[in-house]
Amino acid sequence: MSKISFESESTTVDRYPSRVSEKPQVSARKDPVVYGKASDGPLDEQALARYEENGFLQFDSLLQPFELEKVVAELDRLRDDESLKTTPQSVIEPESGQIRSIFAVHEVSEIMRRLCGHPKLAAIAQQLLGSDAYVHQSRINYKQGFRGEPFFWHSDFETWHVEDGMPAMRAVSCSIALTPNTPHNGPLMLIPGSHHRFVACVGQTPEDHYKQSLRRQELGVPDEESLRRLVQDFGIEAPTGPQGSVTFFECNTMHGSNSNITPYPRSNFFVVYNSVENALVEPFCGLPPRPNFISQREQLTRVSELARH
Amino acid sequence: MSKISFESESTTVDRYPSRVSEKPQVSARKDPVVYGKASDGPLDEQALARYEENGFLQFDSLLQPFELEKVVAELDRLRDDESLKTTPQSVIEPESGQIRSIFAVHEVSEIMRRLCGHPKLAAIAQQLLGSDAYVHQSRINYKQGFRGEPFFWHSDFETWHVEDGMPAMRAVSCSIALTPNTPHNGPLMLIPGSHHRFVACVGQTPEDHYKQSLRRQELGVPDEESLRRLVQDFGIEAPTGPQGSVTFFECNTMHGSNSNITPYPRSNFFVVYNSVENALVEPFCGLPPRPNFISQREQLTRVSELARH
Repeated sequence: MSKISFESESTTVDRYPSRVSEKPQVSARKDPVVYGKASDGPLDEQALARYEENGFLQFDSLLQPFELEKVVAELDRLRDDESLKTTPQSVIEPESGQIRSIFAVHEVSEIMRRLCGHPKLAAIAQQLLGSDAYVHQSRINYKQGFRGEPFFWHSDFETWHVEDGMPAMRAVSCSIALTPNTPHNGPLMLIPGSHHRFVACVGQTPEDHYKQSLRRQELGVPDEESLRRLVQDFGIEAPTGPQGSVTFFECNTMHGSNSNITPYPRSNFFVVYNSVENALVEPFCGLPPRPNFISQREQLTRVSELARH
Repeated sequence: MSKISFESESTTVDRYPSRVSEKPQVSARKDPVVYGKASDGPLDEQALARYEENGFLQFDSLLQPFELEKVVAELDRLRDDESLKTTPQSVIEPESGQIRSIFAVHEVSEIMRRLCGHPKLAAIAQQLLGSDAYVHQSRINYKQGFRGEPFFWHSDFETWHVEDGMPAMRAVSCSIALTPNTPHNGPLMLIPGSHHRFVACVGQTPEDHYKQSLRRQELGVPDEESLRRLVQDFGIEAPTGPQGSVTFFECNTMHGSNSNITPYPRSNFFVVYNSVENALVEPFCGLPPRPNFISQREQLTRVSELARH
């Protein structure tokens, strides 16, 4: 594996230990939430303050209908691509055998690659992170109708830190609704404000944990007492929106989703922007890193470069 | 089994055949929706018209806080009653081993028995049904927090007709929220207007089907195409409300619920009022009737008698 150039010694200290103790522990966030300034644009002071407070921002019409048409057609094409079904980067639903997720979509689809570098998305990510950013992960999530499965509460950062060696909380996820997200079809639920606390989980990470955890998460799962406390303090919000609505959420914002028994699938495109100043180091669990398709370490795709094309 | 006195020959014709064909079929409802008149009270013309159109009515404050206190304490007492856990009338969650439902609660709890005969509930049921009513089924549903499971779409009438011999659509379910029902904790979802159509399901009913179906329903499940059409035509509503809010819904209204990953349990008390003029006959599937605790045939509890005590 090629060494990445911007790794530094100061990032190798584990400031967010997790899965090391038998007892869960909640501690304060040690990193800023917003790294850029309003003058960097496009988000104004109010939007930045909302992100700082809630750990997410919802946009109902950031993308144009013609841009979405191509993306939605690509979504269908990829789901029906038999050659993708058998690659490790596809995750199959345990019960139905259907594709639930495809990882590293920006590497197999030019349309999705361009979407990751969409100037509007790139500008927001760069402003929030106060630097250039690269694609840490991209993914299509198909939550099918009638039998879409729930996804339990988690902080993405907890996993990215422990299993991928992401040193600091300086990444932002962007979820683009490719089908309408309604209150009933298992929309993303967030605990606003939860990004200010770090919930250390119990247990130890076994080798090749990702092979099982992508199907059904059992480690890196916050304990019930910490979750109860977070929800008591902050409540739950489930931003819904039409096709094309976009949710940016901070890497440590606790989130999850319920099942979907409605006839309407809930399919999202999900891209994670990590600051180039927050490049991955060795995983803090001491195991080898997860594959590049889940957690990019090689051939990094910088949004500044994507946006130029 | 004692014969029930108000059975008549005209009720033994199967006007809603289901689970008899390999192909699902949707037909028009053959029965009235509202049997009583506004002058019978307590519901006015507008409320009756809403019920006629949507197949449900939602009340946010029908019951008094002091009445609920006793009921909620009783809910906890019953859930912790170890002797109940091993009776057939208790349904255990497949994954967690916890109690999901207790049937025939009005037979094991005086407080729940009185709740079934609550004058306000009894009056609404009698007005909607245009007659005296009896308790066809009573049940506590505990949808636990964090891992409450989804319940797929179904018409209660389909099962009550096929497996219990309920001749006509002349019953109403009453669901009382014993914990707040929020948009996020897997609230009851209804397809308003769906009670005007009967969706005949495919498959044959095996003997003792209830032992399995109460845990995970696989028969009496409407097909995806019929459900898609219903939702396209009518949409989905998920009435939410505080502890004590009450939903009356028609026996043929299609309903279901998603999972619950929030920390907040969604526990409801559920009582089904059937018209005394719609007494059960032999099950239309030709098999022996289900036990009395699921579907009362013996020692019927008339609400007019309950309300007098």
